[in-house]
Amino acid sequence: MGTMKVTEKYELTEADKKFECEKVYMGEGTPTAEEFWKIAGEDHPGVQMVMAQKGFNLAGPVKVLSEGEYPVKYAGVYMRPEQSRKIFEEKGWKEIAALQLRNPMHRSHEYLCKIAVEVCDGVYIHSLVGNLKPGDIPADVRVKCIDSLVKNYFVDKNVVQGGYPLDMRYAGPREGLLHATFRQNYGCSRMIIGRDHAGVGDFYGMFEAQTIFDKIPTPKDPGKALLCKPLKIDWTFYCHKCDGMASLRTCPHGKEDRVLLSGTMLRKMLSEGGEIPDHFGRDEVLTILREYYEGLTEKVEIKMHGAATGDNKK
Amino acid sequence: MGTMKVTEKYELTEADKKFECEKVYMGEGTPTAEEFWKIAGEDHPGVQMVMAQKGFNLAGPVKVLSEGEYPVKYAGVYMRPEQSRKIFEEKGWKEIAALQLRNPMHRSHEYLCKIAVEVCDGVYIHSLVGNLKPGDIPADVRVKCIDSLVKNYFVDKNVVQGGYPLDMRYAGPREGLLHATFRQNYGCSRMIIGRDHAGVGDFYGMFEAQTIFDKIPTPKDPGKALLCKPLKIDWTFYCHKCDGMASLRTCPHGKEDRVLLSGTMLRKMLSEGGEIPDHFGRDEVLTILREYYEGLTEKVEIKMHGAATGDNKK
Repeated sequence: MGTMKVTEKYELTEADKKFECEKVYMGEGTPTAEEFWKIAGEDHPGVQMVMAQKGFNLAGPVKVLSEGEYPVKYAGVYMRPEQSRKIFEEKGWKEIAALQLRNPMHRSHEYLCKIAVEVCDGVYIHSLVGNLKPGDIPADVRVKCIDSLVKNYFVDKNVVQGGYPLDMRYAGPREGLLHATFRQNYGCSRMIIGRDHAGVGDFYGMFEAQTIFDKIPTPKDPGKALLCKPLKIDWTFYCHKCDGMASLRTCPHGKEDRVLLSGTMLRKMLSEGGEIPDHFGRDEVLTILREYYEGLTEKVEIKMHGAATGDNKK
Repeated sequence: MGTMKVTEKYELTEADKKFECEKVYMGEGTPTAEEFWKIAGEDHPGVQMVMAQKGFNLAGPVKVLSEGEYPVKYAGVYMRPEQSRKIFEEKGWKEIAALQLRNPMHRSHEYLCKIAVEVCDGVYIHSLVGNLKPGDIPADVRVKCIDSLVKNYFVDKNVVQGGYPLDMRYAGPREGLLHATFRQNYGCSRMIIGRDHAGVGDFYGMFEAQTIFDKIPTPKDPGKALLCKPLKIDWTFYCHKCDGMASLRTCPHGKEDRVLLSGTMLRKMLSEGGEIPDHFGRDEVLTILREYYEGLTEKVEIKMHGAATGDNKK
């Protein structure tokens, strides 16, 4: 909660909103405005958010009065940038990779983190603790999953867990840049960017959120440069022939050898009590998720749509 | 084969040789000259090489007349720096990691390479094709092992295999710098430095070959700087609880969960027809090594010594 001293105000027109959407949400999946608008209004939650705005745009200096329930509800996890920077400094870390996380952490995310731990000083598992859309796993359950994963499968001293409140925009590549900017504030030097980072449906190219980092112009004032560089990692999965985790860059085997399951598909299996394929998630994490679903009084129905059947969004 | 136009010559004294040994081969394992010389003469093959030198030191410009049998015997593998640079350029690679290899490639080495493939544009598996000490696996067998590994477990386009003739000095940290310098010539930007790189016995600290890169002075002439930076990776192994490859930085489990086997121990098991523990090496590679040992007319006896029973040297 806070106040804003309004210094600028203008009436918002349909053209303004469309302009914003095209500048922020258009990508390789819908390269022309015509293709974009054919599906964006129906299928893009970020576009829907913008188009639903009414009345006026306001701007001005903001004063924060309270951080709400976060500091108490997520004590030890919710952090200001000042706090995470202090922790990294105390640990003597210089190269710090950030993992953006909004779904429960499974082995594909664990593997992204572990690659980062192998080549950096440490990793910051930075998960979204704000409100999500109905059917998604609540933040406290997801934090419990990360706790259990870190406790059982990570070397504690190489990992820091943090949480932050943010609405996903599903802006793919441009949201990748935004995520890296946030993490630079939190003291991270690398932002892990996997396959279809912050994507939705087929709006973006699978690695558009990686390549955009090579395309942004260098600002004249070096103080304004994005210092948090991407740690680009390909699509990750367990492969039976590789006998471990792998990615499209390291695994030469076929689809039939790989354990592939989208977050949406997994939620469906968990909520319906189905068996999860071996090697997809850690038992400790799946137990927490099963308990959550069993405790739900209202049955959650998860609808599958095209893009959710074989992807690995986070 | 080549000629040298001798421009400098001096008689080599015992003191000269000792001076060289102390400057090159002393490390954290034997921090004082007294401790060093107590064991170096008996246990350090590099020191033995230097101390066995006789007569004179000669210096002067060298002219190469022939590269010997290498270009024919290892056609497609033996490469000049010009050739590897050209391949990297054609592939559009910029970040290239080099793996130094003198033993058959098992999963711990494969994992080092795969981490490199995940975070760089490609990896150069650069193995020693020169002569080795008796009992070691000959280069043509090792090259066959790498071929099979790349064919079955790597995405071909992300790997280049090369071979070069070099005598190991077992100089640990200083040899790490030498290896990086060579690989810089070959066009690589990163040198993979694992646990006890180029080490022997207990002469060096386990990660001394990593930390030395942070200690070398910056030359006044930037053209003389070492541009090939280390890609530092911890001790790697298969871990049953991790359900895949891991390192001391990522695996929190115990010794009993890990598959640990030194190269020397493995050679002993293979030459005596013993069973190799699961997940240590790839079946295709172990088959090639078994065939080699079965084809030997003279039985190889491999003696175990303290340092070879639990290490992971390469």
